[in-house]
Amino acid sequence: MTDIILAGLGQTDVGEHWDIGLRELAFTAIEAALNDAGRLKPQAMYVGNMLAPNLSRQAHLGALLTDFAGLTGIEAVTVEAAGASGGAALRQGYLAVKSGLVDVALVVGVEKMTDQVGAGVEEALATAADSDYESVQGLTPTAQAALLMQRYMYEYNVPADGFAGFALTAHANGAGNPHAMFRKAIKLETYQKAEPMSAPINMFDAAPPADGAAALVLTRRDLLPADWPHPLVRIAASATASDTLALHDRKDPLFFEAAYLATGRAIKQAGITLDQIDFFEYHDSFSIYAAMSLESSGFAIRGHGWKMAADGRIARDGNLPCATFGGLKARGFPGGATGVYQAVEAALQLRGQAGKCQVTDPRYGMIQSLGGPASTAVVHILEKI
Amino acid sequence: MTDIILAGLGQTDVGEHWDIGLRELAFTAIEAALNDAGRLKPQAMYVGNMLAPNLSRQAHLGALLTDFAGLTGIEAVTVEAAGASGGAALRQGYLAVKSGLVDVALVVGVEKMTDQVGAGVEEALATAADSDYESVQGLTPTAQAALLMQRYMYEYNVPADGFAGFALTAHANGAGNPHAMFRKAIKLETYQKAEPMSAPINMFDAAPPADGAAALVLTRRDLLPADWPHPLVRIAASATASDTLALHDRKDPLFFEAAYLATGRAIKQAGITLDQIDFFEYHDSFSIYAAMSLESSGFAIRGHGWKMAADGRIARDGNLPCATFGGLKARGFPGGATGVYQAVEAALQLRGQAGKCQVTDPRYGMIQSLGGPASTAVVHILEKI
Repeated sequence: MTDIILAGLGQTDVGEHWDIGLRELAFTAIEAALNDAGRLKPQAMYVGNMLAPNLSRQAHLGALLTDFAGLTGIEAVTVEAAGASGGAALRQGYLAVKSGLVDVALVVGVEKMTDQVGAGVEEALATAADSDYESVQGLTPTAQAALLMQRYMYEYNVPADGFAGFALTAHANGAGNPHAMFRKAIKLETYQKAEPMSAPINMFDAAPPADGAAALVLTRRDLLPADWPHPLVRIAASATASDTLALHDRKDPLFFEAAYLATGRAIKQAGITLDQIDFFEYHDSFSIYAAMSLESSGFAIRGHGWKMAADGRIARDGNLPCATFGGLKARGFPGGATGVYQAVEAALQLRGQAGKCQVTDPRYGMIQSLGGPASTAVVHILEKI
Repeated sequence: MTDIILAGLGQTDVGEHWDIGLRELAFTAIEAALNDAGRLKPQAMYVGNMLAPNLSRQAHLGALLTDFAGLTGIEAVTVEAAGASGGAALRQGYLAVKSGLVDVALVVGVEKMTDQVGAGVEEALATAADSDYESVQGLTPTAQAALLMQRYMYEYNVPADGFAGFALTAHANGAGNPHAMFRKAIKLETYQKAEPMSAPINMFDAAPPADGAAALVLTRRDLLPADWPHPLVRIAASATASDTLALHDRKDPLFFEAAYLATGRAIKQAGITLDQIDFFEYHDSFSIYAAMSLESSGFAIRGHGWKMAADGRIARDGNLPCATFGGLKARGFPGGATGVYQAVEAALQLRGQAGKCQVTDPRYGMIQSLGGPASTAVVHILEKI
């Protein structure tokens, strides 16, 4: 079976783009990815987006973005799985190329969170949770994560600043990423003095909602031009799993079953072991999610995920670098675009084009996109070949 | 290459289900499809939905519905392309099975339009149009279709009741469909006396928004059990195309370019000619769309689509039966679920299980899902083998 290659990479700065709208933002990333991909012409576009129907009163992004990007006529569709939408769009693009019916697919993640003509951001983000049983009671994503974090800290005797390592790592890495929303390292004291948002979550435990767009071009290896200029990065594995939507339906709320399942499926498909993963882009929308993701994916035993951050094991020179471009925390959290950012960043690492964010000579990078409290988990393993 | 079979079919009644919510509605269809499919266990679920993020403040339907259907753990995602969402979900399910990475896929279309905790129905439906250039000016889908119909009638000298044939055919066929919202034939006089909604569109030119869910199971032919009880229906072709989102950006607003492209691609993939299509399920959200769909797909020359309805050529005993279960007009228009209804109905026709709606011994059925004014068109050709 021929390899599926990430052949074009593009991204916009993540932040507050008050001057441009959703379509312009997406176009910037699409143009960059198509330029990076050279002469490849996409036949299909998979758009990862979560919030536009609410925040921008705009659904039907497939037609909008093919139109605006001058690609009218090609196949186009939006793929949604809450915060995992970007990863899910990558998955659909991968399946399309794998099917043999699409030769070149464009995967676009876009989210515009600063302008809101409809619902507010927190209300829109709450559509990821169970509307009838959670959101209607006023439970927001941040409040839900706070409940999880509180339980985790109680179960595992975590000190008050136990999660600081996630923010410190993210901001240290984000400082080297020219596209990051926050490009400044922070000190432990900054974390310790941070304002609470929803205790025990403080300002540095939660990723900032942001505008951003990322895009990539997927194609089969045999379709690349002979003079292809970039190192080859392939999708070694692609897997998705679901869990209960409502947190209260889980036997064990402190374990992300979907992350466990999707990671296991991906590792099996790639034919490798977990310790061959050279870096990991987790979905740190909240620091508690990062800790639970490390544990549920098998990188740490239960209750020890936070220690990987505290000990520096997830730092760029640690044994499992994470959030290498700043993660959701410092690069910023552009909702449903996030998974595509992760893929672009991981591919840059594997190409050796990560600049100041570069980790040493990686072969395998794993990216994980979560929707809600891992009600959806999408895992891809990228490999330099 | 092995055939992809529509192995399980399920649908709920279409109408106003004030007593049950979106998840219960979807579950009813899922259960019916899984029962019809016997022992096949789905590994992935593709949900076609357009309006839940607005009308029910509920995104993330993949996790919601796998959870509620007792399928927690499997892959699940929402696919959105406005009114074409159902067709687009079928397309993604098809690609997934075709890729060889998913053996059994569940495709679910669901829409709940009677209960609205967020925006109203017309406002939510308007997210299918260009928010910045159309919807913000107050242009609703019905008003937009009315402009098209007026132009069409002027260009082609269509009499005031020229479109009546679409409604008459739909209601005559819907009368035989136990799941239809309207199960009563209407007379020409009823059409002629109908109240205008947005002139020249009257109450019988527009399909009724409704609640409904349909589901189907896709798998490879070689995975069917030896004692498979149903006639085999395969997907002979699957194609999608896009057009400009905004109507004013088109050179020729009276031609659905995306329907033309998608139909052409599908016919080519199926390796047949258009006259081999035995029946056609078009997307008659408005009667003008049905007329333009017939023309853009190549079944009628420009300006003659309405005559196919007026002459009885689209009736059950005509040369191209259309809307055989009542179409969007009489079966009802459950938004993003519509394309899955079309697929279920077409498969029933090809199995010979269409009851009073049965057309005579069909081999090929074509279904077409439109998003907005065919800004997205999804076409599938189903074949009895």
